[in-house]
Amino acid sequence: MNMNKALQKLSNGYYILTAVKPGEELKTRDKDYIAAGIVNWVSQISFEPLQIVVSVRVDSHLNETIDYSTSFTLHVLSEKQKDLIDKFSADSEVTNEHINGVPYSFKNGQIMFDDAIARIECTLNQSVRAGDHTLQIGEVGKCEVLEDTDPLTTRERPSRYQGVSDSLN
Amino acid sequence: MNMNKALQKLSNGYYILTAVKPGEELKTRDKDYIAAGIVNWVSQISFEPLQIVVSVRVDSHLNETIDYSTSFTLHVLSEKQKDLIDKFSADSEVTNEHINGVPYSFKNGQIMFDDAIARIECTLNQSVRAGDHTLQIGEVGKCEVLEDTDPLTTRERPSRYQGVSDSLN
Repeated sequence: MNMNKALQKLSNGYYILTAVKPGEELKTRDKDYIAAGIVNWVSQISFEPLQIVVSVRVDSHLNETIDYSTSFTLHVLSEKQKDLIDKFSADSEVTNEHINGVPYSFKNGQIMFDDAIARIECTLNQSVRAGDHTLQIGEVGKCEVLEDTDPLTTRERPSRYQGVSDSLN
Repeated sequence: MNMNKALQKLSNGYYILTAVKPGEELKTRDKDYIAAGIVNWVSQISFEPLQIVVSVRVDSHLNETIDYSTSFTLHVLSEKQKDLIDKFSADSEVTNEHINGVPYSFKNGQIMFDDAIARIECTLNQSVRAGDHTLQIGEVGKCEVLEDTDPLTTRERPSRYQGVSDSLN
């Protein structure tokens, strides 16, 4: 199918997106809202202000948590982190110290993993509905490069987030 | 600078974006509006409807032409087309048969180049201002794969569209 084949020529990376809303700031519950998941649809979109967009499925826990928290952290993955892709593609299991078995820390009000090549912290500037996804537009804040390695792209590892829904399944 | 180094870990491809608005449809002028330029900030953003986003500089001829035409065509480039990147990074010189010296055809109301690995025709669904750029959100229409080759990414060829303005200059 031409549509899938053409859309599979678009280049994206692999990222873990995290968001958290502390329970103490919520009126209706005590427990923290914590969400983490794999995303491919990410791009810088402006210089001034410095902004990126992440397209997040409307009905996901991640999307709801970003709406509550108005901030998020993007973790860039390399080939070395490819095992995390399957781990973070399903629902997250969160304990005090781990998400899906991976240790995390809580810094700057953000959920952070050390197993990534770079981290980009964002504050939400705008959310735009785009069909079955929401464009979460974040202004880039604190950034860290954890390892100067090449990012993993959809060229080496095709993603089902290329083309019509579930086209690789 | 951490911000630049981290943003340079985001993965994007290289694309030529074209748009045209025939002069006969315009009240104020006879000449066709034709625009073509290199873009990096592209991603699929939804399955239903099947949409992509292209972030285009607000004050560019390309952006104005998309606003007029409400459609555009994205051409995916590979390593083989790397010479086109410099050619299409400055203002375009348009004649009846060439843009910046590269032959084009006018098909389906779109400006098309054959020197690309894939073409994705879009109709504009939504334009969202994002700082110094406009998110031009297009619904994917006719697609063609011209050559089954890997796309060129910002990993092999870093782009100045990664990080703060003109960070590679």
